[in-house]
Amino acid sequence: MQNVSIIGVGQTPVGEHWETSLRHLSLQAIEAALQDAGIAPETLDALVIGNALGGAISDQHHLGALIADFAGLRGIEAFRVEGADASGALALRQGALMVASGAAQTVLVLGVEKVTDVVGSQRTAALATFLDSEYESAHGATPVAIMAMLMRRYMSQYNVKVADFANFSVNAHANGSKNPNAMYRNVIKADRFAAAPLVAEPINLFDVAPEGDGAAAVILTSSERATDLVPQPIRLMASAVATDALAVHDRANPLFLSALQQAVSKALRSAELSQSDIDVLELHDSATIMTTLALEASGFAAVGEGWRLAAENKIGLTGELPISTFGGLKARGNPLGATGVYQAVEVVLQLRGKAGANQVPEARIGMTQTLGGLGGTAVVHILGV
Amino acid sequence: MQNVSIIGVGQTPVGEHWETSLRHLSLQAIEAALQDAGIAPETLDALVIGNALGGAISDQHHLGALIADFAGLRGIEAFRVEGADASGALALRQGALMVASGAAQTVLVLGVEKVTDVVGSQRTAALATFLDSEYESAHGATPVAIMAMLMRRYMSQYNVKVADFANFSVNAHANGSKNPNAMYRNVIKADRFAAAPLVAEPINLFDVAPEGDGAAAVILTSSERATDLVPQPIRLMASAVATDALAVHDRANPLFLSALQQAVSKALRSAELSQSDIDVLELHDSATIMTTLALEASGFAAVGEGWRLAAENKIGLTGELPISTFGGLKARGNPLGATGVYQAVEVVLQLRGKAGANQVPEARIGMTQTLGGLGGTAVVHILGV
Repeated sequence: MQNVSIIGVGQTPVGEHWETSLRHLSLQAIEAALQDAGIAPETLDALVIGNALGGAISDQHHLGALIADFAGLRGIEAFRVEGADASGALALRQGALMVASGAAQTVLVLGVEKVTDVVGSQRTAALATFLDSEYESAHGATPVAIMAMLMRRYMSQYNVKVADFANFSVNAHANGSKNPNAMYRNVIKADRFAAAPLVAEPINLFDVAPEGDGAAAVILTSSERATDLVPQPIRLMASAVATDALAVHDRANPLFLSALQQAVSKALRSAELSQSDIDVLELHDSATIMTTLALEASGFAAVGEGWRLAAENKIGLTGELPISTFGGLKARGNPLGATGVYQAVEVVLQLRGKAGANQVPEARIGMTQTLGGLGGTAVVHILGV
Repeated sequence: MQNVSIIGVGQTPVGEHWETSLRHLSLQAIEAALQDAGIAPETLDALVIGNALGGAISDQHHLGALIADFAGLRGIEAFRVEGADASGALALRQGALMVASGAAQTVLVLGVEKVTDVVGSQRTAALATFLDSEYESAHGATPVAIMAMLMRRYMSQYNVKVADFANFSVNAHANGSKNPNAMYRNVIKADRFAAAPLVAEPINLFDVAPEGDGAAAVILTSSERATDLVPQPIRLMASAVATDALAVHDRANPLFLSALQQAVSKALRSAELSQSDIDVLELHDSATIMTTLALEASGFAAVGEGWRLAAENKIGLTGELPISTFGGLKARGNPLGATGVYQAVEVVLQLRGKAGANQVPEARIGMTQTLGGLGGTAVVHILGV
């Protein structure tokens, strides 16, 4: 993977795009990425699409051919990769492997999701397909309900209160408030966090990330070629995928994200880096408990101590470990199958020094962590200047 | 792609497996392939899954983590690839690229589909997600209805009768009758073909392939390593993917499968072969009109003449161009997202000389052609001894 670089990025705002279809959202992100890279559509050899719920919500499988044609790429190799809300990150890895293998010279990786067309029980049912259908969702479990049980267990095991998680959301919204592509740009006050309306006790509205519609794209080519094409190519230094039992109740320790631990250590080893080399981290903050568990599994905090990074204010743009720098899933929004690609786009902007008001000073190496569901799938990418 | 070989294959019978779940079908194929290769599960580095309708029919997305864990591969890199009924073939290509790129040494590619749990309008709605949801299925179009229009137009344009297509199905069922894994093992008589009950005029029950449940698996590794591991590794000589407008009405010529034409010529060029080198061809015979159009687009017949290969009896096991040698989609059954992997398994058996009563004499090079929907996606693999 050493020889793959990102030469273009594009994104739409995340939100409730009721008047924009799946294909139109896709087109916007593809055109933005092509323009950013300064290359013509004909330059592309393949289109890899990360999407989770196109079939369930838009009655649309077979997105490869559909979006390729709609984006003026008729004929191109195109297909969809799926692993719940890790779909976009999985697509990014497959796109990179296509370049690394020599099967393609230039690949556009698109993450797209259109989820807000349905609400209530339909949305809940769609999201529950990320769980084990026979042993979890068939009995009424939903992702947020299981995260709530994890949070309760964590609070009990480590003697932590709801308010101790507040700064994860405060930080995400502070960063999201400066990101024109963020779904929520309001600021959250720490002392109001624990009093927010409940979603699934103890998880509240200020704690859990909202699903949103959106599309993001990155363009990959070999690092040799990238240097000739753009002034600031960003190297894909490593990528890794690992899995865990899909159902949390099948895991030896439900409070440890072992897939993420594996993927992070594989990626760091392959890039010959350690945690302390990471200047910016986009992680899967679908709820503050997931952020906490992710920081612990990936070695940025000791087990039982992940929440302290927030409580001790170490995660801001100028902090020890800047996370959710454009708002994260919490404030930028969680466009499910597009999330992994948004994270990559955001890290690229950071490493280019083009993150504007969201800039992390002197960011040279960034990591993205994307989870499918409750960590059944974990995908890690390391990007560098 | 020159250095990837298949070292193990496995398959379940195709049929109505009402008492076997998606995960159990998967496990059966995975275990069969591991046994065939004579390797331990721990040898695998990745699991790539082709599946089309797990979310729509079994409420189960996120199959990578689910099936990896259920098959005793917890932790392994795993994800799903989707492109309608080309999903399995797309997964095969991505698995091969993982080996070719060096990201994985040994990869298991699984195709799995569980479709017969729903019938009637639910099945029809699920299959219609392979079409353009806004411009085809929203108006009531289904895949078989569109194939019927293609067949009618073909019959009119080239002055061909329904009976002229009969031998495609006669051949498929003759071969399927000898395949213990085939969904339909009855023999069809040519003179009864045109009188079969109609599905979507002029397509009848003897013309269109049935969807079925099933799972198939192949294990890939580098060709160098393959030679050390098994006595008869089969080389993946080439693979290629191309797309077309998803909606047939958007194509310049609805009777020409241009994605397939592109994928076939890319694959042949990359393997430095021509059509005449192909000893066995597994194509996407979802209906006789698709077989006809596939033979024409891929250069095995002139435009307007594809049906003659059947009418002139050239497609049998000892014919000029043996097709559907284990029954094809028509008689072995069409397990949608698993189909491309079944085709690869069957060609491997042919090239090993282990096809039993279905053996094509002296088969040394085989091609698989897998279509998504009505050819919006086309995937071609060339395998050789």
